[in-house]
Amino acid sequence: MTFVSKLEAALGKAQVVSDPSALQDRRHDYWVLSHFDDIDGRPAPAPLCAVRPRHAEDVAATLRLCAQEGIGLVPFGLGSGVCGGVLAASERVLLDMSAMNALRFIDEKNLLAGFDAGHNGLAAEDKVAARGLTIGHWPQSIALSSVGGWIATRASGQLSTGYGNIEDLVHSVEAVLPDASVVTLGRAPRAAAGPDLRHILMGSEGTLGVVTGVTLSLRRQPEARALSAYHVRAVEEGFEAQREILQSGWAPVVLRQYDAVEAKRGFPDHARENKGLLLAVHEGPRTRVDAEQAAVAQICEGAGLAAALVAAVERWLERRNHVPHWKDYLAQGVMLDTVEVSASWSAIARVYHEAVRRLQEVPGCVNASAHSSHAYRSGINLYFTFAVAPGDKTKMRGAYEASWRAIMEATAEAGGGIAHHHGIGRVRRAYLHHDLGSGGLALLRTLKRALDPKGIMNPGVLIPDA
Amino acid sequence: MTFVSKLEAALGKAQVVSDPSALQDRRHDYWVLSHFDDIDGRPAPAPLCAVRPRHAEDVAATLRLCAQEGIGLVPFGLGSGVCGGVLAASERVLLDMSAMNALRFIDEKNLLAGFDAGHNGLAAEDKVAARGLTIGHWPQSIALSSVGGWIATRASGQLSTGYGNIEDLVHSVEAVLPDASVVTLGRAPRAAAGPDLRHILMGSEGTLGVVTGVTLSLRRQPEARALSAYHVRAVEEGFEAQREILQSGWAPVVLRQYDAVEAKRGFPDHARENKGLLLAVHEGPRTRVDAEQAAVAQICEGAGLAAALVAAVERWLERRNHVPHWKDYLAQGVMLDTVEVSASWSAIARVYHEAVRRLQEVPGCVNASAHSSHAYRSGINLYFTFAVAPGDKTKMRGAYEASWRAIMEATAEAGGGIAHHHGIGRVRRAYLHHDLGSGGLALLRTLKRALDPKGIMNPGVLIPDA
Repeated sequence: MTFVSKLEAALGKAQVVSDPSALQDRRHDYWVLSHFDDIDGRPAPAPLCAVRPRHAEDVAATLRLCAQEGIGLVPFGLGSGVCGGVLAASERVLLDMSAMNALRFIDEKNLLAGFDAGHNGLAAEDKVAARGLTIGHWPQSIALSSVGGWIATRASGQLSTGYGNIEDLVHSVEAVLPDASVVTLGRAPRAAAGPDLRHILMGSEGTLGVVTGVTLSLRRQPEARALSAYHVRAVEEGFEAQREILQSGWAPVVLRQYDAVEAKRGFPDHARENKGLLLAVHEGPRTRVDAEQAAVAQICEGAGLAAALVAAVERWLERRNHVPHWKDYLAQGVMLDTVEVSASWSAIARVYHEAVRRLQEVPGCVNASAHSSHAYRSGINLYFTFAVAPGDKTKMRGAYEASWRAIMEATAEAGGGIAHHHGIGRVRRAYLHHDLGSGGLALLRTLKRALDPKGIMNPGVLIPDA
Repeated sequence: MTFVSKLEAALGKAQVVSDPSALQDRRHDYWVLSHFDDIDGRPAPAPLCAVRPRHAEDVAATLRLCAQEGIGLVPFGLGSGVCGGVLAASERVLLDMSAMNALRFIDEKNLLAGFDAGHNGLAAEDKVAARGLTIGHWPQSIALSSVGGWIATRASGQLSTGYGNIEDLVHSVEAVLPDASVVTLGRAPRAAAGPDLRHILMGSEGTLGVVTGVTLSLRRQPEARALSAYHVRAVEEGFEAQREILQSGWAPVVLRQYDAVEAKRGFPDHARENKGLLLAVHEGPRTRVDAEQAAVAQICEGAGLAAALVAAVERWLERRNHVPHWKDYLAQGVMLDTVEVSASWSAIARVYHEAVRRLQEVPGCVNASAHSSHAYRSGINLYFTFAVAPGDKTKMRGAYEASWRAIMEATAEAGGGIAHHHGIGRVRRAYLHHDLGSGGLALLRTLKRALDPKGIMNPGVLIPDA
C-alpha cells in the first residue's frame, strides 16, 4: 500500500486530495519570496497529498500514520500567512484545515464562541455580530485567515491596543499533539493550575501540534465610537504623545502613527507636506469614549500636535483591509514586503531611523517607510514597508534578504523584538535567537524534542537548526 | 565529602545553612494542614540544608550538584504560600531565595522595574511608589511574599479586575532551568516569536525551574480613586450586576461581593441583616473614574441594589491585609482555610450554593461562606472560607480534607476551575485533572520529564503521580 492509500483507508477517500492540480493551490502561504520563486521558474513543490480532516480524530489518525512512517506534516489554515510558515515539500502531507469550519456554539451569557480551527475569521466575526457581539480581533487578513491560524501564529488585530492581542482573547484551545492525543486547554475564566498550557500552542506555527478548535472570549459591540486625528511633525513627537496616552491609563482601541512617506501615500487628501499622521479610534461606553477622546486631545494638543480631519480615520476604516497585492509589483520587477517589529519607548525612534537608513542603502530600494499600529505601556510596534527594484531579476532575492536583514538587525541592536505579530515562519528563523537568547532557543528545542521526537511537525519552520 | 560540604565548597560556607535551629523556620509555607501536623506531634521534617544563593550562578551550581547526586531541591521564596508548595523533606535541599533581594533597576520611561526573585513584594511596591509608580499587584500576602513567588504561583492581586493578574504584569522572567542553564524570557513589549516561554515558569511552583529575576511592567499611580458600595439581596443578584459591569466594558480595579455571612462578620457597621455587600474601587484618570462610578451606579441601581455607605470600602481598604491567623484558631481546636475557585457566570451561583451546602454537611462545620474578588467577561472567582471544629483532634484532618473535597468537587461538577490564584501545591494535586483533563495532565508530565528528567525539582508538588 502507498502512503496515500493508507491515509485513504484510515480517513476515507473523500478526505485525501491527491489530484495534482488541486494540490497546486496549497503549495504555500502569501510569503512573497516563495511567490517570486514561482514566477522566477523555481516553483514551490506540491505536497505528496492533502488531508482534509472533518474533526480532531481525523487529525489524530493522520498524525499516527505520519509518525509511523516518519513523514512530515504541514498544517495549513487558510494560507494567509506572510512568513513562509506553510511550504509543503513534495514528500510531505499537507493538513488542510479548511473543511473543519463549523461554528460550535455562541454563549451570550458568558460571551464565548467556539469554532473549528478552519473557520474563516470574518465569517466568525459576522456570526457573533449577528448577536450584537464582537470578537474584537481584526487582523488585516480577517477575510482570508482562520481562527486556528490566529492561535498558531499569535496574531494581533487592528483594535488590539484596546482589546488585546489573540492571547488576551482566547478562552480555550483544542489541539491534537504529535502523539495523536487530543487536548482541550483552558477551562476557567482564569486559573493558577500549573503553567498556562494554551501558550504551548499559541505561536507554535504547527511545529508542536495542530490546533483543531478555539473558544474565544467575546465582547458586546461597543455603545459608541469616536475618531481622532493629529498631524505629527517628527516621529519622536508622535511616539511621545502615544506614550503619554498609554501611560496615563488610556487605551484607544486603535492608535496608528504613519511616517510622512506613508501619510502622503495613504492619506493624500489629509496629510501635510513632510508630516506624519496619528489616528485614533475610541470605542466603548459613551461616557468613557468621550472622556478618552478629550484626554487624547489634551495630550496631543499639549504636545503641540495640530488636529487633522477625522475623515483621515474614516478613510482608514474604509480601506483598512485593502492591500495592494505584491503580485502586481512583482510583475513590474518590484519586490514588496512588510515587516513588523517592536521596541521600548526609549528605543523605538532609533529602530525607526536606523532601519530606514539601512533599507535605503540596499541597492534598488524604492521605498522604506513605517507606521506604528500597536502601543503598550512599555513600548510600541513598527510596521515597515519596503520595496526593492534592483532592475535585474537575479538580484531580487539578494535585495529582498538584505532588506529583511536591515530591519531585523537594526531592531535587535536597539534591544527590540524581531516579530510583533506575523510570526517567524521561514523568513525570520535565522533571527529568532535575538528574541529568545541561546537559553530560550534551547528551551524551545527541548519542547520540540519532547512533544515531537520524530520531528514530523512542520519541519523547517520557526525553530532554527541547532 | 558529604553533600553539604560539596555545596559549601562550590558556593562558599556562608551560602549553606545547616544549623538545625535555623532550618526549623524553613520547613514549610503557611499551609494550615502542615502547621496542624506540627502541633499535633507530626512536625514537618527539616531539610538536609538550606542554600542561600546570591545570584543565578549560585542557583545553577546548586542544581548541578543536586542533579549529579539525584537530590531533590525545594525552591523557597518568602514562604507565604498556603497550598503546601514548600515542604522540605529531610533528604532535600531547600533553596532559600531571600538573600537574592536586590532592586535591579527602575525604568521610568518604559515603566519597567527589575527585581531579584527574592525581593519582598511590599518593599518592591514601596520602591516604585517613591517614583510615583505602582506595580498594581496587591496580593493579600504582599508584605510576606516575594516577586519571584508571584511568578512561580501565578498570583493575583486585589486590584486585578482592573489591572490584570501577574501574567498581565510581567515583562520578563529570568530563571535557572533544571539543566542549570540560565534563561531570560521576554524582551519585546509583545511578540509573536514562537510560544511565549515565560508561561513555562509562571505557575510552575518550582517544578520546572527556579525563577531568579523578574521585570515587571508598571503603571503610573492613578490620578483619581472613587469608591462604591451596594447591598445585595441574593448572591445571584450581585453576580448579575457584576456581569453587567464587566460585559458593558467597565473594569473597576476592585469588585468584591461578600455573601451575607461574610458581610455581617467583616462589616458589622455597614451590612444589613441577611444581605450581602458589593464593593467597588475605581482608579485611573479622573474623568474615567467619574464615568465608571456613574455607570456602576446606574447598573446597580437599575438592578434594584440599594446603595451602601462607602465607609464599608474604606474599612476594607484599611484592613484588607489583616488576616486572623489560623494558628489562633488551631489552638482552640478549629481548623480554618480559604479556597479560591472560579466559574462561568452561568455556573457560579451553583458553585456557591452547592459548595456551601456540602461544606455544611461536613461534621463539625462552623463556617461556610464566600466572597468574590476577581471578575472577568466570561466569569468570576469565589473565595470560600471554611472552619471545622470536629471536637476531637483525631477528626481534624478528615474534616479538613472533606471540606476541601466539598469545594473542589462542587466546582468541578459545575464546570468551574479548581484554582483561581493560590496554586496547586500539595493540597489540590489530586484535583488537577479536573482543570487539565487527562490530555493536559499528560502534556504537563511531558514538560516535566523533558525539563527535569531526574525529577529533582520540588518533588511531590503540582503534578499528580501518573
